[in-house]
Amino acid sequence: MIGSDKDWLSAIRWDADGLVPAIAQDATSGDILMMAWMNEEALRLTVAENRAIYYSRSRRKLWRKGESSGHVQQLHEIRLDCDADVILLKVTQEGGIACHTGRRSCFYLKLADLRWQPVDPVLKDPEAIYGGGH
Amino acid sequence: MIGSDKDWLSAIRWDADGLVPAIAQDATSGDILMMAWMNEEALRLTVAENRAIYYSRSRRKLWRKGESSGHVQQLHEIRLDCDADVILLKVTQEGGIACHTGRRSCFYLKLADLRWQPVDPVLKDPEAIYGGGH
Repeated sequence: MIGSDKDWLSAIRWDADGLVPAIAQDATSGDILMMAWMNEEALRLTVAENRAIYYSRSRRKLWRKGESSGHVQQLHEIRLDCDADVILLKVTQEGGIACHTGRRSCFYLKLADLRWQPVDPVLKDPEAIYGGGH
Repeated sequence: MIGSDKDWLSAIRWDADGLVPAIAQDATSGDILMMAWMNEEALRLTVAENRAIYYSRSRRKLWRKGESSGHVQQLHEIRLDCDADVILLKVTQEGGIACHTGRRSCFYLKLADLRWQPVDPVLKDPEAIYGGGH
């Protein structure tokens, strides 16, 4: 039984790199905003600070979502799946934009006619979000 | 630009094992049902057969979701994220049960008081789903 005696962090089945996938879902609309990765520190801090904090595999460091964009994800609820190897965050997305392209969700490419077609609008120019430094 | 010239399958950034995470979301309710993995063949067949087909990392073979439980996921839409390394499936979950524990969603463990607590009901005894062979 998960969580009965074990510490909540050690109950998680981290992968060979010490990471788990974390899905961010809009707590109100149910829309899936993004998927990123967490190490143990990121998950612990997510709970401690009540906001989504990921681990950037490319930058190899913690990524406080919104640190450069202001698009913080306020935490409502955390769930774990039956295999204890995927995290689900229910969040409020500040600014209504989760994606670095300026879209609400990162999943804006839809398969249609066997092509990935962008179907969601850019709500804000990334230059305006990141000041051209992204 | 993703998908403009490239084949839709080769546009995907498969990981070192040739896999991508695939999130299954209920097309009607927006609930997240599960996350599993796909290789190129699984994704190609998912589209060809219009149902979710994953790659089981533990069994090292294709996993036609529902093959033993009958809980097939009928495909409505496929999306890809901005990094081209996560798939989102919008599905109709036959039987209303995605999880091998007999629950609607695999994400039935909620963090409360720093413990993972099961908060969703078992809709059907797994013994009745799998005939005790699971």
